[in-house]
Parts: sequence; C-alpha cells; structure tokens
Amino acid sequence: MYTSTPRTTATRLRERVSYDADLVHSILDEAWVCHLSFVVGTGDEAEPRVLPTLHVRIGEVLYVHGSTGSRPLRGAKAEGIKVSVAVTLLDGLVLARSQFHHSANYRSVVAHGTATVVTDPEEKSAVLTAIVEKIAAGRAADTRAPSPKELAQTSVLALPLSEVSAKVRAKGVGDEPEDYALPHWAGVVPLRTVAGEPEPDEGVEGVPDYLRAVIGVTA
Amino acid sequence: MYTSTPRTTATRLRERVSYDADLVHSILDEAWVCHLSFVVGTGDEAEPRVLPTLHVRIGEVLYVHGSTGSRPLRGAKAEGIKVSVAVTLLDGLVLARSQFHHSANYRSVVAHGTATVVTDPEEKSAVLTAIVEKIAAGRAADTRAPSPKELAQTSVLALPLSEVSAKVRAKGVGDEPEDYALPHWAGVVPLRTVAGEPEPDEGVEGVPDYLRAVIGVTA
Repeated sequence: MYTSTPRTTATRLRERVSYDADLVHSILDEAWVCHLSFVVGTGDEAEPRVLPTLHVRIGEVLYVHGSTGSRPLRGAKAEGIKVSVAVTLLDGLVLARSQFHHSANYRSVVAHGTATVVTDPEEKSAVLTAIVEKIAAGRAADTRAPSPKELAQTSVLALPLSEVSAKVRAKGVGDEPEDYALPHWAGVVPLRTVAGEPEPDEGVEGVPDYLRAVIGVTA
Repeated sequence: MYTSTPRTTATRLRERVSYDADLVHSILDEAWVCHLSFVVGTGDEAEPRVLPTLHVRIGEVLYVHGSTGSRPLRGAKAEGIKVSVAVTLLDGLVLARSQFHHSANYRSVVAHGTATVVTDPEEKSAVLTAIVEKIAAGRAADTRAPSPKELAQTSVLALPLSEVSAKVRAKGVGDEPEDYALPHWAGVVPLRTVAGEPEPDEGVEGVPDYLRAVIGVTA
C-alpha cells in the first residue's frame, strides 16, 4: 500500500481511488503509453507541458523515456524535475439513459514526484531490456543489446513510486431512479486493445513463438 | 493549417510533426481519453498535475470534462487556467533488431492555451450531446437530455484550438544498416482498440442499430 498524501487524496468519487501497490503495478505494467507533465518557466510565466511517451516499471521505480526533444527534460540533470505522470487504460463506455450519467470504465494511475535523469549506463541498459521484455517475455534475447554510444543517446527519467494512486471505475450504468422506466438503451460497450498479426520487416519470415503468445491478447 | 509557435515547434524528429487541421481533428475525434495538465502552486512551489478525462471537439474548440475533483480546475473561473492537453492513439509496437531502435507507431495531438470554464447552460448541453453522439451517431436521440440541475453540476473546460500540433509515426523498422544481417525477428505488431459486444443494463434488451454500427470497429 502507498501512503495517501494531499496530492493523491481524492476530493470526490473517493470510492474509485486505491493505494494498493499490486493494482498500481498491474496498470503501469499493462499500459504502453504514459503521459508525462512538467512545468516550464517560472513565476507568472509558469506553464504546463504534457507529452506522451513510453514507460516501464522496475520494482518501485517508474522509468520514462525522455528522448522527446523537450528542452526542460533534457536539462533536468542532477537536481531533477517535478513531474506528474498518468497512465490510463480505457475499458469501456458506459451508456446511461440520461446523457448526464454517461461515463467510462477505466483503470488509471497518477504518480507525482521529482524525476531524475538516469546517467548510469547499466541502469539505462536494464531499462531498455525491460521495455523490450514488456512486449513479450523472450524478446530481449532476440535483439541486439545497446552499444555504449546508443546508451549515451538514450534519455531515461526515473521516478520513484512513492506518491501514487490508482483510480478505477468498473461497473455498469448508474442512472437516476426515475430514469429506469425510460425506453432508452443503456449498458456498457466494452473496449479493449488487441494486437493484430505481426508484420515482419523485409527479409524476416514467420513470427517467433514468444510473440505468438501475445497476439490477440489484450495488450 | 495551424501556425507553428515556439510551444509547438519540435526540436527533434521534425518529420513527425504536422500542423494540418484535418489530421489534428481526426485524432481528437477518434480518441476517447485526453490527458489534461496544469500547474498548481506559484513560484518555487509550482508543480505539474496531469489527469485523464474525456473530451470532444466542436469546430475549433476542444471541450474537456472538468468534473475531476481537482480544486484548481474547479477554481478556474473567469480568468481561465493555462493547460496543455495531449491525446494519443497507439497504433503499433515497432520491434527492431536492436533494442535501441524499438519504437511505437502512434498518432498524437498536443494543444496549449488558456482553458475557460463553460458557464452557458446551452453550450454545456451541446457538449454533453456531442459526447454521446461521438459514441455513435443517433445515440443522443436515445437518451434523456440534461436537466438544468444536471447542467449546473457539469463542469466543462473550453480550449480554443490555436496552438496545436500533431505528431505521427506510421512506418516500419528503422535499424542501423549493419544490423539487417542479424538473425533477430523485426517487424511491427499492430495494435488497435476494438469495441466488444455491448452488455445491456438490467431491463434492457437487444442492441440498437446505431450501436451495432460501431461494434468491432476501431473505437
């Protein structure tokens, strides 16, 4: 369990919020994309920035790919940079009889903290390996490991998972009592992300077994 | 075409960036979830926040559902709040022979600006209608429209689409020339979001034709 802090305490819909580490980990591990936000400028000039990037969790550290061309991220050297990172899995659209109660089923995580730039080549290499293994167990062994030059070009931010919470909605329609008599269709349209048939690169044939295992499975 | 500004000008991978309005619109219209970021605190205390929410585009305005329990958003009355909003569609995982060149195919949009709270009940109602029509054309007619009390409880932020850009990667593997001789599998694993069979609420039977049309289609 993570400890609730002012940043991670909900002010409404509290029943959706959880600090359970297994739940947080499962959401971070299932999602490919995270959205990383940070502040640029100071004083009255302070502005938010958000950008999508890839992440991988190793233990209690969330590693975020930082080769995004964003100067503030590239400049976040020793002292680190305050970030807020969100990961969201959309599981369904909830169609109520009333427009007002239309909603979505989802599982999301938001993590807050100071992210630091990973400088140790071995740690960076472990992150790259973890990202390719996240695609499918066995993938790393079927790749060329990064060279020292490639590691030097790889920018990775590390955010310790400390101020973090999950938010989940996983239920049916919640209409007003008097609306259940209305003749409108109501229910949930489930959504899922699926992996299609892999498209081999030129000169490559077939699909390895370790990839076969993830095809058609929720990605 | 949107006009490039310092906020929307890429510092690397420029070939992926576009200011084409049709492309920006198509990405915003296909995605259900956006990630909204803003700054809380001032001076040295300034911190980023990011949260997932639902959006809908009407013309050149991006409307974002703001009933998120976030005090800064609820407090963003007349003067508005500086935001950065990202929408990301993940289209595939790119598996290179080298770990370093693993990548993702995606289409994303980032919009910057000052969002204001929508106060006009008619405008809010139009946003709710647009959100349910986004699920499927014809859905709004099969719902109860919001009451004045529900509209008062609905929090919507409006962000004019002015500083906005799209970023797209839609291609195969890009390995180093010397790596093509390696025996490793390389290619693209396509990903897509699909809608499953709708799950009717208690007392509801069948699936209306207007919903039938979106099932199994990329959502």
